[in-house]
Amino acid sequence: MNKTAGTVTVGQLGERGVLARILAQLTAAHAATLGPGDDCAVIGDRPGFDTVITTDTMIEGPDFRLPWHAGFELGWKLAATNLSDVAAMGATPTALTLSLAVPQGTEVAFLEQIAEGLDAACRTLAPGCGVVGGDLGTAPVIMAAVTALGQVAHETAVTRSGASEGDIVAYAGELGLAGLGLSLLFSHAADDGVAHSRTLNELWAEHPELLSAQLAPAPPIPLGPIAAAAGATAMMDVSDGLALDGARLARASDVALHLDGAALTTHFGTQYGLEVPVTAMLEGGEDHGLLTTFPAATALPVGFHQIGRVGHRAAGDPELLLNGTPYAARGWDPFAPIALNRRG
Amino acid sequence: MNKTAGTVTVGQLGERGVLARILAQLTAAHAATLGPGDDCAVIGDRPGFDTVITTDTMIEGPDFRLPWHAGFELGWKLAATNLSDVAAMGATPTALTLSLAVPQGTEVAFLEQIAEGLDAACRTLAPGCGVVGGDLGTAPVIMAAVTALGQVAHETAVTRSGASEGDIVAYAGELGLAGLGLSLLFSHAADDGVAHSRTLNELWAEHPELLSAQLAPAPPIPLGPIAAAAGATAMMDVSDGLALDGARLARASDVALHLDGAALTTHFGTQYGLEVPVTAMLEGGEDHGLLTTFPAATALPVGFHQIGRVGHRAAGDPELLLNGTPYAARGWDPFAPIALNRRG
Repeated sequence: MNKTAGTVTVGQLGERGVLARILAQLTAAHAATLGPGDDCAVIGDRPGFDTVITTDTMIEGPDFRLPWHAGFELGWKLAATNLSDVAAMGATPTALTLSLAVPQGTEVAFLEQIAEGLDAACRTLAPGCGVVGGDLGTAPVIMAAVTALGQVAHETAVTRSGASEGDIVAYAGELGLAGLGLSLLFSHAADDGVAHSRTLNELWAEHPELLSAQLAPAPPIPLGPIAAAAGATAMMDVSDGLALDGARLARASDVALHLDGAALTTHFGTQYGLEVPVTAMLEGGEDHGLLTTFPAATALPVGFHQIGRVGHRAAGDPELLLNGTPYAARGWDPFAPIALNRRG
Repeated sequence: MNKTAGTVTVGQLGERGVLARILAQLTAAHAATLGPGDDCAVIGDRPGFDTVITTDTMIEGPDFRLPWHAGFELGWKLAATNLSDVAAMGATPTALTLSLAVPQGTEVAFLEQIAEGLDAACRTLAPGCGVVGGDLGTAPVIMAAVTALGQVAHETAVTRSGASEGDIVAYAGELGLAGLGLSLLFSHAADDGVAHSRTLNELWAEHPELLSAQLAPAPPIPLGPIAAAAGATAMMDVSDGLALDGARLARASDVALHLDGAALTTHFGTQYGLEVPVTAMLEGGEDHGLLTTFPAATALPVGFHQIGRVGHRAAGDPELLLNGTPYAARGWDPFAPIALNRRG
């Protein structure tokens, strides 16, 4: 690890650049019908027997802070974000593994709460799925990596790349609330991450729907396989904001997504009695709803709302438009030098 | 996380105690035919279609040190230890996922080397298996969690609990070398973990087999499915030393393992021209060979050597005996307050 003039650090290159370099080193697994780049990889080539797999990690500091996250919510969110990636392939979650590393002085009760949260999220969001194994070690901060498995019950997994011109763009789940919840936490946070101008309990009492969406999200997991059965052409879990992830789906499918601001406002402008601005819907992030495209004639399954249409995209054209105008989403990078990963 | 008189930390309770508490929180996954506690969990209930899954993490500090571990070896060892857990179920590894978290200032080249090591280990030890997905984030130290999937090609996975009185106890792989390699590194290490009285290059030149066994182990992965096909009754990956892991297999199977010191010396007393004492074989750890039991009449597959017999165990009897005498293995715990996890 000599530092010389020619070296590049991960902080300089950013997550996507680093991933591109790493992926270039890797030989494809024979059994993988879909490798890295989608919400999950797909293992197996017998239709109806495909297994999907995904992994997501939360690290104290960049991904969560103990003054904000009780163990239960941490475990819940870890399960929910991974289950959502499985659902986004049209698959039903079957099992999770947990790799947990904590400082020596961590209370056992905190780890029990993490396990309770993982378990409650599985029972609530994906009944039948559960933790089947894990690994426990020591680290200077709390690190929790979850890997989720799922089973594809229909012909093949749904990827990001199958959307066609004319398809319906639909969304299922909460939209914008999680980002507003994070803003609320930040607006009352001191530099060390502790809510101070209002206590966390006060914030919970005033805005349970915002803090719940941010700290213990409830993605519509069963709608993933239902969308697949209804003929979904493309699907993805929205984690970095509808605009940014929508542009990714459009790029993968080589199409443009035309979003309809009025439809967004109609379906998601009021959630739990709260007004949600379109900007929060587009850039809030951590929603973990399902952005899905369906053939034009599809009767959308209950839970999905049409928010736009898939259009043609020529080389150089924008991937995402709002009311006909190109919309450039701000991105985020885990290596960006900010205190906490603020999506959007 | 208030510290009160009634609280217990993970450092106080130790890994097994913490795991017992956590497992008590968890609802079983419907699809899991075998949950936590073996080398892998088993998913699926159609014989011949079972998927096994395992996860293992390496964290800078407790599990590895940058002055000793180049990125390539770190990636290799991560793959090898997980592949070995898959093989120990009698399964063929199909895919790995990688969750990697590193400090901002980490060189991209180091991550590329990790990927090269992972990939080379897959190609060499388990051709066809590869990395299918991952996650990249930031952390104060390097943390790498790998999850491995495997496919069971025969009737059912081989667990730790199927050994019967009269069975042959056999072992395949290197034995004791990895522990001797770690001792060699420690014997030349300053407090900060840097080899100083001899450089690492000098140590590699003198004892390539010891450092290779410790830093880039080569477990006999293909022998896992072969043992299963030959009728193995129980099998496990030896990671914490033959004595300690042997006692675990005996406990899980409710039998006693009678090890034969002369057989150990005959088959493993000289490896790569080096003399290996029986104590190193029993307590060295990180061997990642396959401890396997077979029915008495089995013609052992090439690569396996008989090292003992399975005997009856009454309540209170010892689980492991060497030449007829109870052998108490020293254990290790990742939360024990030592500089590096010394197995054995």
